[in-house]
Amino acid sequence: MSRASFEELQRRLQEISDLGKTMSLLAWDQQVMMPRRGAAIRAEQLATVGRIAHEKFTSPEIGRLLDELRHFGEEHEYDSFEASLIRVVSRDWEKARRVPSDLRAEMSRSAALANPVWVDARKNNDFASFLPVLRKNLDLRKRYIDCFDVGDEPYDIVLDDFERDMKTAEVRQLFDYLKAHQAPLVKEVAARASDDGPATGEFPLGVQKQFELEVAHAFGFTEDAWRLDPTVHPFASGTGITDIRITTRYFLDNLDGLFAVMHEFGHGLYEHQIDPGLERSPLARGVSLGMHESQSRMWENLVGRSLPFWRHFFPRLQELFPTPLAGHDAERWYREVNTVEPSLIRVEADEATYNLHIILRFELEQAMLADEFPLEQLPEEWNRRVWDYLGIEVPTYALGNLISAQIWEKVVADLPGLYGEFEQGEFGSLRDWLREHLHRHGRKFTPAETLERVAGTSEIDPEPYVRYLREKLAGIYGIAATAA
Amino acid sequence: MSRASFEELQRRLQEISDLGKTMSLLAWDQQVMMPRRGAAIRAEQLATVGRIAHEKFTSPEIGRLLDELRHFGEEHEYDSFEASLIRVVSRDWEKARRVPSDLRAEMSRSAALANPVWVDARKNNDFASFLPVLRKNLDLRKRYIDCFDVGDEPYDIVLDDFERDMKTAEVRQLFDYLKAHQAPLVKEVAARASDDGPATGEFPLGVQKQFELEVAHAFGFTEDAWRLDPTVHPFASGTGITDIRITTRYFLDNLDGLFAVMHEFGHGLYEHQIDPGLERSPLARGVSLGMHESQSRMWENLVGRSLPFWRHFFPRLQELFPTPLAGHDAERWYREVNTVEPSLIRVEADEATYNLHIILRFELEQAMLADEFPLEQLPEEWNRRVWDYLGIEVPTYALGNLISAQIWEKVVADLPGLYGEFEQGEFGSLRDWLREHLHRHGRKFTPAETLERVAGTSEIDPEPYVRYLREKLAGIYGIAATAA
Repeated sequence: MSRASFEELQRRLQEISDLGKTMSLLAWDQQVMMPRRGAAIRAEQLATVGRIAHEKFTSPEIGRLLDELRHFGEEHEYDSFEASLIRVVSRDWEKARRVPSDLRAEMSRSAALANPVWVDARKNNDFASFLPVLRKNLDLRKRYIDCFDVGDEPYDIVLDDFERDMKTAEVRQLFDYLKAHQAPLVKEVAARASDDGPATGEFPLGVQKQFELEVAHAFGFTEDAWRLDPTVHPFASGTGITDIRITTRYFLDNLDGLFAVMHEFGHGLYEHQIDPGLERSPLARGVSLGMHESQSRMWENLVGRSLPFWRHFFPRLQELFPTPLAGHDAERWYREVNTVEPSLIRVEADEATYNLHIILRFELEQAMLADEFPLEQLPEEWNRRVWDYLGIEVPTYALGNLISAQIWEKVVADLPGLYGEFEQGEFGSLRDWLREHLHRHGRKFTPAETLERVAGTSEIDPEPYVRYLREKLAGIYGIAATAA
Repeated sequence: MSRASFEELQRRLQEISDLGKTMSLLAWDQQVMMPRRGAAIRAEQLATVGRIAHEKFTSPEIGRLLDELRHFGEEHEYDSFEASLIRVVSRDWEKARRVPSDLRAEMSRSAALANPVWVDARKNNDFASFLPVLRKNLDLRKRYIDCFDVGDEPYDIVLDDFERDMKTAEVRQLFDYLKAHQAPLVKEVAARASDDGPATGEFPLGVQKQFELEVAHAFGFTEDAWRLDPTVHPFASGTGITDIRITTRYFLDNLDGLFAVMHEFGHGLYEHQIDPGLERSPLARGVSLGMHESQSRMWENLVGRSLPFWRHFFPRLQELFPTPLAGHDAERWYREVNTVEPSLIRVEADEATYNLHIILRFELEQAMLADEFPLEQLPEEWNRRVWDYLGIEVPTYALGNLISAQIWEKVVADLPGLYGEFEQGEFGSLRDWLREHLHRHGRKFTPAETLERVAGTSEIDPEPYVRYLREKLAGIYGIAATAA
């Protein structure tokens, strides 16, 4: 009887999963393929599919099945598919049923309609044309928050969607720690500018794509299960474990697009290495945004900005781009891709200042939700804080970076030959380690439980990242390898 | 009260239309973009979205609303949106509710799973690997037919889905007429082989795409509402009136890909020029497959294989492909693209033998549904009939070709300057005429009613096509311009 109920639950969740992945395709296509004038009807399609998925998920029938299956779930091992599915879905259902389907649909529609407006506004540096759209989306977000009992801070509601169980106050605490321990490091670096000039000249776009694919293939990208396409704002997506879509963008005068590819590869690999037995269930996703970012930042920075990686790939890079890289060698290129230099654009920021952008957004989003300033002033508020932080007073790190370093210490301890493999252009051990310890679990466990399994502690700990960064910058800038 | 019911019906149909267009995107992506290993989950996604759309459409609630709205519909003018929607949907609903949602879902899933198997089998010339998939799809088709009261012939049920109200016997009659009147024409041509040799040499693929886009833009393709992509088997699709996707394929030694682009452009233009007021309703589609094919064949043949068209475009073509077209001029190229020469592959067939393939399939499909031979023998049956027909005994024409010539006689009478415009590379008058007389109506009327409006008669008439072809071939091969 319980088995039959479980199968009925599973069947319903499969249908909802199919609708979710269908929305992923509608959204991927919108940003990568869709002709501009398709935007209005696409917003309706996203709203309709989103509404149906939400209606089906929040139906009382699902609640009844979950009630019926409580004991069935407890009878199974904690790690089993059955127990995990019932546990995770029960929590999802309790949250989702508080949100009316029409609000969900309106959120999908408005976000889809906002995208082309944002693309145009960004191109024309025209915040005014984006303002009404931003206001609409912010109002919807507030209505969403109103569906829940707000405890200490409204932002907790939003944060929980991305980082289950985490409180805004905890993030603030982590960021405060980082402010205290990060500032000295960056000050030390700032005092020692490198003598190297940067690579100058053009990196032809077609050749960039060729090199990106060579790196991606070495990482584990295969044509039969992955795509790489250009877009305005890089992201990773897909319609299933064996259909992963990553995107990047191209600049003629630098290789930022390559680092975006490695970043999005990390996201894609997480989804690609989930246990195929979880496919078509709500467990077939990364456990949280922080954990997802740990994977993207790992492949972008801990691998893609490491010296062993470039010992292998630099000769090929120089062969493909002889003009801008004349006079470079692997070591100099390694220093260049690790230059600490503030940028106004988050996705182009270097490893050390990236998180300034994150904390900036974190604080701005809280302020917007709390109506702390009129929305028209967003550019001024953004500018004020950008300059506060990018004046290099309080560099901080985002959760994903912190987690990536925690995991990395485990990886390196388990795989002593890892850097030697990178120098050979081999990344299979890393890929397999991540699948075994992290990826395959999908959303079976909470973020804290997942972190416990992969890093041996359930707490996000900022120390490994600070340590990693200090050691790396010590090698490049000659600062002390341990804090004074 | 009736107005409120009508709005409720409309709202429900909008949701179903969004799901239908979402399926179009899932299918387009599958054939154009999807990595190979995405096939299995894509089949589930198509099945799920298809099942939900079918469940929503066949719900008793829609039947109740249609009942309630019978008088409301009759009170409105026949051509009005209200009357047309109620009329067309009532008939669709009566058909759809006979088909179980699970069968619909299984048909979507099986068709999607068949696609990659067909692509591989086709590449490897391996019918055996396709056989089980074909058998499964054929069985489902038979189960579908069993949902209806079969009158004279089972094939009528299938035909009605594509060509509402038409009977298999009527098609057979048209084809018989064509056999009687077409054979002499082709025999006459066969006796007079052209002295010209064909263009030989390579047509680089990138240059082909460039020329295709130049032609498509002259026809009315715009980047903001259309896409052109490569695929295995050319088709037209889209997610709405302002998001039209056409596809083609490329061969290094010929320009068949260009004619596929013009063909698919004709399909796309039909959907693109539907009255925007019909968007998100079941009326926002072409009225029938025959009418749709009339549009594709018109742009491919009546425009794209006409001498005025090539008077304008040949110089540019020669500039782009100087090697294979050395020694050609517009007239010789016009003769070459109108060469009558049997081919085994339908989409590569010339204008005169194309319909052999159609009648072959028409007869084979009837025989398969009636179990007239074991399915393993399909290649033999196909070969036997191919050689019967492509031995040039009974050339025939498909409905779309016949309709295209009927419409064309009206177009030319209304627009005496048409060919002069083609020679200037201008196609706006044709486009506008088609929108006004045909495209904008979408599915408001029956195929017969639609034909009446666009061609002045509700009957498909084979004479104009035979006349058109004889006149054209007279110019090229020197046969008599009127039948003896």
